[in-house]
Amino acid sequence: MAEGDVREDFVRSQLEPMAEFFIVIHPMCLRDLLERLETEIIRNVLTREKGNVRKAAEILGVKYTTLYFKVKKYGIEPVLFETPRH
Amino acid sequence: MAEGDVREDFVRSQLEPMAEFFIVIHPMCLRDLLERLETEIIRNVLTREKGNVRKAAEILGVKYTTLYFKVKKYGIEPVLFETPRH
Repeated sequence: MAEGDVREDFVRSQLEPMAEFFIVIHPMCLRDLLERLETEIIRNVLTREKGNVRKAAEILGVKYTTLYFKVKKYGIEPVLFETPRH
Repeated sequence: MAEGDVREDFVRSQLEPMAEFFIVIHPMCLRDLLERLETEIIRNVLTREKGNVRKAAEILGVKYTTLYFKVKKYGIEPVLFETPRH
């Protein structure tokens, strides 16, 4: 099985219950859903990178300023993902 | 537990393995990932609505012309989702 097929199958297996949930149980418009997903992805990467927006931007393949704008837009607080200093 | 919390938990539980997969195993930029997700959502709704772009647009809360543009952009063929006539 080609690598592309594996990813394809994974995407479908992940999206099927999500689409079901949002479309049938909690309908929301496409734009809201995509922004919600984008927010979760950014939060996930910021968690990995301990709140470092510059590193997160590199991983997500966007400019620092673009990610900074999105972080502000979605009300994400990068400082909350920092590891506490002792 | 409030309805919002249930959805919040669901979104997180769905996105965690997906983010893990895309960020760690098959890195792709944020834009590609969101477009990929958008494509899957549109395909899912078109399957439910048997290829009817107008009905799919209503469900997704977008204008018919907007969805039509996206369908063309992503190379989706609504006719493939139609139920065969006998």
